[in-house]
Amino acid sequence: MRGALAPVVTPFRADHAVDLKNLERHCRWLIGKNCGLAVFGTNSEGNSLSVEEKIAALDHLVEAGLPPARMMPGTGHCALPDTIRLSKHAVGLGCGGVLMLPPFYYKGVSDDGLFDAVARVVDGVADERLRIYLYHIPPVAQVGFSVDLIGRLIRAHPRVVVGIKDSSGDFSHTRRLLAEFPGWGVFCGNELDLLEAMGEGAFGCISATCNVNAGNIAALAADWRSPEAAARQKAVNDVRRAIAAFPMIPALKAVAGRFYGDDGWRAVRPPLTALGRSAREKLFAALAGLDFSMQTPAAAEVAAA
Amino acid sequence: MRGALAPVVTPFRADHAVDLKNLERHCRWLIGKNCGLAVFGTNSEGNSLSVEEKIAALDHLVEAGLPPARMMPGTGHCALPDTIRLSKHAVGLGCGGVLMLPPFYYKGVSDDGLFDAVARVVDGVADERLRIYLYHIPPVAQVGFSVDLIGRLIRAHPRVVVGIKDSSGDFSHTRRLLAEFPGWGVFCGNELDLLEAMGEGAFGCISATCNVNAGNIAALAADWRSPEAAARQKAVNDVRRAIAAFPMIPALKAVAGRFYGDDGWRAVRPPLTALGRSAREKLFAALAGLDFSMQTPAAAEVAAA
Repeated sequence: MRGALAPVVTPFRADHAVDLKNLERHCRWLIGKNCGLAVFGTNSEGNSLSVEEKIAALDHLVEAGLPPARMMPGTGHCALPDTIRLSKHAVGLGCGGVLMLPPFYYKGVSDDGLFDAVARVVDGVADERLRIYLYHIPPVAQVGFSVDLIGRLIRAHPRVVVGIKDSSGDFSHTRRLLAEFPGWGVFCGNELDLLEAMGEGAFGCISATCNVNAGNIAALAADWRSPEAAARQKAVNDVRRAIAAFPMIPALKAVAGRFYGDDGWRAVRPPLTALGRSAREKLFAALAGLDFSMQTPAAAEVAAA
Repeated sequence: MRGALAPVVTPFRADHAVDLKNLERHCRWLIGKNCGLAVFGTNSEGNSLSVEEKIAALDHLVEAGLPPARMMPGTGHCALPDTIRLSKHAVGLGCGGVLMLPPFYYKGVSDDGLFDAVARVVDGVADERLRIYLYHIPPVAQVGFSVDLIGRLIRAHPRVVVGIKDSSGDFSHTRRLLAEFPGWGVFCGNELDLLEAMGEGAFGCISATCNVNAGNIAALAADWRSPEAAARQKAVNDVRRAIAAFPMIPALKAVAGRFYGDDGWRAVRPPLTALGRSAREKLFAALAGLDFSMQTPAAAEVAAA
């Protein structure tokens, strides 16, 4: 897996269930923009979904013809039986990889304990097609993968532990991973330093804002050597910063709701809360005039195609 | 519910499954010491168990004749459908209450979002027998219930939101809850200040160390007005401090393993790691001479009875 992936935002129906039709539609749009599908990531509200909901959604997307090879579902739960069950299902569907949080309820756990957790998943899934991308996001999960632990995991499971999403929020940490593990699958957790990261060997980025700016970010990841890359980096960063001034998930859903012409998109699952009207208006004002992929309504985009 | 409850430590078999027989045996011992069963709490490794494992364990315990009215299973998951499903099952079995963590993956969430989460659970369980004890443990879950939010929840669900386990680790916070919500079900998260708390209206404590010191802590909670209470408080605190010098869950399991004469008890689920031999020896040395309920082997206790 290479390039840009979106932690696909998850739409909900009025009865609070996952809106599979709208999820499928959004995944099609992302794939059409050359953006991979990291469904059930943090920005997907993946941790607010049950294993059963995730299995049903994955099944739906694959049956709808979306390419499992471009999917990297989040499968890391607090309880290893859940992580194993969901990872096994994803592998069975042919998913290109799984994005795995460490067990994150217990804090201050040792590298040995996390090493054992990964080993249990590898043993439990028991399928040589399993490809794990470690999900390092200490600002949210609080539990992360140390550089030393990553090295141990790569040595113990060289064909399975194939990469990482670095959502440390610290680009110097991403650089350190790139230097320590050359040729290994390091993905940035956002696009802010993507150009520089690609130059140092990154495989791409898995970024929340891909949900609304998929085309531009995917193009930057693909054509990072082009003369336009520097200007494109600046443009995607302007969009990122405009959105990141608001709570990320509700903001992405507000933009998606406007794009698809469907207010139902705004719904988030508690403990999150949707953006109110005034915040939405401020967000849209901040985005006005910026070049991003959900700029025009979806209907106009279809008409133009 | 009143008195002392244990977040019952969960034994595992060699194949990593929950050891239902040993769990049942330990629950019988706790009930025999007048200690309630807060199964699936933090110290139960409750967050390392799947919903299916918890349902199977609850079913087993109730079928084995243990009293559901003395059970307060932990039912709070990151995903509300899981919380609802498990809480509904517990209510259906007649459990006296559920101990509910807030959804704890997303950090920095608002009181409004947590208020909505509880409302979703109340609506989803849709059973007037539901009794929720809020589980406030910010040192681990990172997400807690503010005093203001607790007040809002009590006013919105007066017959459902009936109490709290305060594992803030700060007795002044417990005191504040006792003062703000007189007559409401405040349980201390440990026994260190139990005597004082009972005098100020606490309902009891839900404490890890009940697993190995059930009789003494339950007696302190029941007879806190007795002349022996002060000496008993000092004695239980000495035991608590001796154990808390080690990682709590592995230490409790080491003591249980010695008590039941079964090394299998020592197993923990990753990301936790078991105590090594040297730590176990130090722990047993620290406990030597202290008065606690698992002092003698279980066999000797049975023989003496």
